[in-house]
Amino acid sequence: MKTGILLISLVAATLNFARCAHAQDAEQIVVHKSGQPVSQGSADFFTGAVKMQPMLSANADAPYGAAYVTFAVQARTAWHRHPAGQRLIVISGTAWTQEWNGKRIEAKAGDMIWCPPNIKHWHGASADGEMTHVALTGVKDGENVEWLEKVTDEQYYGH
Amino acid sequence: MKTGILLISLVAATLNFARCAHAQDAEQIVVHKSGQPVSQGSADFFTGAVKMQPMLSANADAPYGAAYVTFAVQARTAWHRHPAGQRLIVISGTAWTQEWNGKRIEAKAGDMIWCPPNIKHWHGASADGEMTHVALTGVKDGENVEWLEKVTDEQYYGH
Repeated sequence: MKTGILLISLVAATLNFARCAHAQDAEQIVVHKSGQPVSQGSADFFTGAVKMQPMLSANADAPYGAAYVTFAVQARTAWHRHPAGQRLIVISGTAWTQEWNGKRIEAKAGDMIWCPPNIKHWHGASADGEMTHVALTGVKDGENVEWLEKVTDEQYYGH
Repeated sequence: MKTGILLISLVAATLNFARCAHAQDAEQIVVHKSGQPVSQGSADFFTGAVKMQPMLSANADAPYGAAYVTFAVQARTAWHRHPAGQRLIVISGTAWTQEWNGKRIEAKAGDMIWCPPNIKHWHGASADGEMTHVALTGVKDGENVEWLEKVTDEQYYGH
């Protein structure tokens, strides 16, 4: 068991070293290269194909994570809330987002979206094409999202 | 004097209403559209042509501003420090950045850069083409940057 923990520690240390290969300590500029491992969004929390590429973790000075997220046409998150809010930078395609009991809102490449804390909402691609955004998600008490029920087709295609 | 303050308040209120046209209060999702006014970086703090488009202000939940910044080929900031650090998302082109007494680092479109607080550094376009990044700049005690001397050509073209 101890060997296992040691091995995990060594692997983690090696990965950290590789990620910060040019830095001698944490107080230097670090470049996080694109091409990081991509994971598929869980069917529990997403509808349709969603690819996620985490890039930056929250830290004491910058208390928000950053990830590239690509939604296939018509793909979307489940309803959810962010305890510390979320900013979305639309990189390509058209984003749709909607609050509970609100109208659907559209955002184009170059637009930025601010979703305040604890607003029940969803976001995703439009019905016409793929969409990529950078998600900048605040962290509060170690949490960044509270997942709720899935978004039905009726909700997605409604207004 | 009072009339002047009232007028300023009215203009500010109108601008705020226009910016949040679809929102009934501040606690709703807000889309900040691209195409906001673009300003030119001051020659006191930048070398070469730099266009800045502020998009998001810091707020209590998201204590960092966001702006699109486009550097013409060979354009760069002056040396500077960020009291609460800065993250850069390279949108297009190749970014160069360098710490004082450090080697020049390159970042490509899709890469993200973390510059910790109080690191003396500069960033800008490469010598080969225009570069656009989103700058996510932390705010501490109301300040987000401390400007220092300009970056000489020798420093920019060196390593």
